[in-house]
Amino acid sequence: MSKRIYNFSAGPATLPEAVLKEAAAEMLNYQNSGMSVMEMSHRSKVYQQIIDEAEADLRELMNIPENYRVLFLQGGASLQFAMIPLNLMKNKVADYILTGNWAQKAYEEAQKYGKINVLASSEDRTYAYIPNLTDLKISEDADYVHICENNTIFGTRFVDLPDTKGKTLVSDQSSCILSEPIDVSKYGVIYAGAQKNIGPAGTVIVIIREDLIPTEKIKEVPTMLQYKIHNDAGSMYNTPPTYGIYLCGKVFKYLLSLGGLEKVQAYNIKKANILYNFLDNSKLFYGTVDAEYRSLMNVCFKTDSDELNDLFIKEAKAKGFENLKGHRVVGGMRASIYNAMPIEGVQALVDFMREFEAKHTK
Amino acid sequence: MSKRIYNFSAGPATLPEAVLKEAAAEMLNYQNSGMSVMEMSHRSKVYQQIIDEAEADLRELMNIPENYRVLFLQGGASLQFAMIPLNLMKNKVADYILTGNWAQKAYEEAQKYGKINVLASSEDRTYAYIPNLTDLKISEDADYVHICENNTIFGTRFVDLPDTKGKTLVSDQSSCILSEPIDVSKYGVIYAGAQKNIGPAGTVIVIIREDLIPTEKIKEVPTMLQYKIHNDAGSMYNTPPTYGIYLCGKVFKYLLSLGGLEKVQAYNIKKANILYNFLDNSKLFYGTVDAEYRSLMNVCFKTDSDELNDLFIKEAKAKGFENLKGHRVVGGMRASIYNAMPIEGVQALVDFMREFEAKHTK
Repeated sequence: MSKRIYNFSAGPATLPEAVLKEAAAEMLNYQNSGMSVMEMSHRSKVYQQIIDEAEADLRELMNIPENYRVLFLQGGASLQFAMIPLNLMKNKVADYILTGNWAQKAYEEAQKYGKINVLASSEDRTYAYIPNLTDLKISEDADYVHICENNTIFGTRFVDLPDTKGKTLVSDQSSCILSEPIDVSKYGVIYAGAQKNIGPAGTVIVIIREDLIPTEKIKEVPTMLQYKIHNDAGSMYNTPPTYGIYLCGKVFKYLLSLGGLEKVQAYNIKKANILYNFLDNSKLFYGTVDAEYRSLMNVCFKTDSDELNDLFIKEAKAKGFENLKGHRVVGGMRASIYNAMPIEGVQALVDFMREFEAKHTK
Repeated sequence: MSKRIYNFSAGPATLPEAVLKEAAAEMLNYQNSGMSVMEMSHRSKVYQQIIDEAEADLRELMNIPENYRVLFLQGGASLQFAMIPLNLMKNKVADYILTGNWAQKAYEEAQKYGKINVLASSEDRTYAYIPNLTDLKISEDADYVHICENNTIFGTRFVDLPDTKGKTLVSDQSSCILSEPIDVSKYGVIYAGAQKNIGPAGTVIVIIREDLIPTEKIKEVPTMLQYKIHNDAGSMYNTPPTYGIYLCGKVFKYLLSLGGLEKVQAYNIKKANILYNFLDNSKLFYGTVDAEYRSLMNVCFKTDSDELNDLFIKEAKAKGFENLKGHRVVGGMRASIYNAMPIEGVQALVDFMREFEAKHTK
């Protein structure tokens, strides 16, 4: 087995090596069950324990209040873009804040199901900032206010939450969940695709305040798109993505073993600062977003030359820094440094950037 | 690592040991990429090759004609119960044949979206047979005819396909796909959750004739529930269940290495016959369905005593035969013997049944 590289992919993304090693060791025989977790009946006691522990560990990590339910679903955040309005809309009105492509996609999907208002947008400067959140014109009859809390493509994040004037806050945390402690009680719904900060693609986690789950089945909504159905069945209405949930659970245990989300946050700030401090002092590279709203997870940067950007990505790849190409709508580079990216990877990247800078500046 | 047991689970189910060994060996570093498949960007070349090969191998295995598309989706067969009518209904009429719980669930879901007719049902005898298929009253304006080709819970299968009088045939093959060669051109849509005969739960495969995919987006249907969206994006509209697809691909390669589906079928017939021959001659155990429609994949059987059934399941478990309890609506026992169950497992089970029989008959 040759060396593992530093993988700066925006998602699916790098996972803790310790977790992968455990998974490999248990692949043929999970804890003397005589089978792989992926071969287990989801109705078996041994699997029930896996999903129960995953939920309990997530609750402990995020300090999730008792009146919130945790659902392990499929379809990614993209399916939540539909499930949120289909389940939460009573007045058929919702407010969205547009801070990037995913917020925009959520907004477009919601328009299928009701009257959707744009509260604020940072599209005017290619989403390089988070709009002012202090006096938003929340719709009086809004069923909820939707945000995308960390913007993977553009590298910004909400530092403060919007004042929703009492309306339910719904947050897509796909690219920042578990990166720092949050107060879950400020949200109505938090959802996150697993493939950035949690586990493999194919599992999406929904944390929802109990009273927001419809009390009756909704006749016109596909059964699989109803929170009530999944909640009533403990995420086992049909076969869940059993192996993915098992790996999410391993990541939760790993984060607990590190000391929980305060420790994780401190590590993430340290990691991000290594990069941002370098960028702020570089003669060649610069960050692409307003410093105030910089993401801890996705660090976007450029040089002024497309040729140099391409050369940097190519040379970095040759050195074992993978997936540094920025999203096509931004260009330049992006280093996604989720929880599982070790500080050594970020330090090594900055060392290489410094070398590259020395070579290409006079 | 202690011994692997014989796992007769109805799904998720046993997988080829060779596939699991490969997956374990590649867990930290797939083919010198320096990362696990579950850490790879789905937009990377290395992952594109994995999904492309999976599709190509499935096409070869099933001899899928060029005018059919293969989609790797999420949500299981249960989400297809909604996607089929949402995408295929033009006249808002469809005909369903009810041969078990899953057929029934598909039927109930379809009722949300149009006028659904029951062509035939075997509910009168707890789905212990497949209804006569020769002169069905196909609706003149039916958009399609839906069947569940192998009935996991009851242990029956369609030996012949219904005469749909030219209407599109849609088949849920979740528990029989890849168990024998079929003529794909007889179907409009074949769909199957991966977790029985293919790979881990969380991936569903849809094989659909091109002309059945809507040519335009459907305004009122959730984006993630539109075949056109997934087809246009090569199953990558959003992040697919990347690791699951990788494992499905490994299973396809494994089946090709065995010599393809004719070889697989011969093996499956041999396996099933060991069990059915024993049941037909047993003084204690008997099969629960009409011999003509017996499934090759799910073998349901009983004794006349609930106590003996329970004792058998308990003693079998102690001997390393796992998940033999029948579904609660049937009772008794069920041995699911999908492709990956080795003949040795079936032989060992029958040996144990013989022992048990000797002990409990005079």
